[in-house]
Amino acid sequence: MELRPIGRVRTSIPRDEVKARAGISEIVIDPDFEAGLDGLEEFSHLFVLFWLHEVGKGPRALKTHPRGREDLPLVGIFATRSPLRPNPLGLTRVRLLRREGRVLTVEGLDAYDGTPVVDLKPYDPWDVEEDVTVADWWRQLAEERERR
Amino acid sequence: MELRPIGRVRTSIPRDEVKARAGISEIVIDPDFEAGLDGLEEFSHLFVLFWLHEVGKGPRALKTHPRGREDLPLVGIFATRSPLRPNPLGLTRVRLLRREGRVLTVEGLDAYDGTPVVDLKPYDPWDVEEDVTVADWWRQLAEERERR
Repeated sequence: MELRPIGRVRTSIPRDEVKARAGISEIVIDPDFEAGLDGLEEFSHLFVLFWLHEVGKGPRALKTHPRGREDLPLVGIFATRSPLRPNPLGLTRVRLLRREGRVLTVEGLDAYDGTPVVDLKPYDPWDVEEDVTVADWWRQLAEERERR
Repeated sequence: MELRPIGRVRTSIPRDEVKARAGISEIVIDPDFEAGLDGLEEFSHLFVLFWLHEVGKGPRALKTHPRGREDLPLVGIFATRSPLRPNPLGLTRVRLLRREGRVLTVEGLDAYDGTPVVDLKPYDPWDVEEDVTVADWWRQLAEERERR
C-alpha cells in the first residue's frame, strides 16, 4: 500500500497560523496529473488528503491528550485529529476558490508549505451531516476558541 | 509514503448493494491498535479512510465518465469519487452505532468485506459545509436516484 504524491502545497501562511484553517494557499499538481483536475472547478468544496511529512517515523503512542493539553482526557489517537497517527494522513475540507491550469487556490487548508498531496475528492451533500455528537473535550476546545 | 492497515471491514452486505451506503457493517481493528479507539465512542460520526484493494495496479486513465456512463461528461478523476485513482484511497463518512472492544459497528460504509482500513477520524462541525455547489452531472445522478 504505497502512496505517491500527486502534487504539493504552496503557501506563505506563517507556520503558527496554518492550523487555524483561515488562510488561502495553493495546491500545485504535478504535470503528469493535471488532466485529472478537469471538471473539479464545478465543485465549490474539496477534500484534500495529504501526507503529514514532518511527523517523525517510528513507534508512536496510541493515546494522546488533545492538543498536548494534560487538562484534557487521555484519548485514543483515532478519536483525535492529531498528526501522530499510525498512518500520517491529513484530511481537510477546503473551499476551492479557483483553478488555473495545475494550480488550485483553496481556503482553509491546514497543511504546511511543501506538504505532499495524495488525493483530492469533491465534497458533496453525502458528506454533510448536521446532527453530530462530539466528545466533551472537543466542545470545551471549541468554546475556548469562541471566547478568544 | 507507505501505509499499513489498522484493521479490516467485515460485512455481509451483498457486493452490489455496498455502494448504496445504506447498510450496517463492522470495522475490526487489529489488536495492536485497539487502544487508539478509546474515546471514539463519544463521537456520533467518523471518517473512514480505506484502501481500495480490489482496484488493479498499473497506469490508469486520468479522465472518466462518472459511473462509467458515456452520456455523462468525461471529467478528471479528481472531480469524481471513482476508485480508479492514482492513490486508491476511499473516504466515507459513517455513523458510529457502537464500539465493542476492537469492533466498531457503523452505518453507511461503502467498502467490501475484507477492505483494509488505514485511518479513522472523528467527524466534527468543521467538516460540515451546507452551502455547497456540485457539478451538473452530479446533480443529474442525484435526481435520477430520487426518482427511483
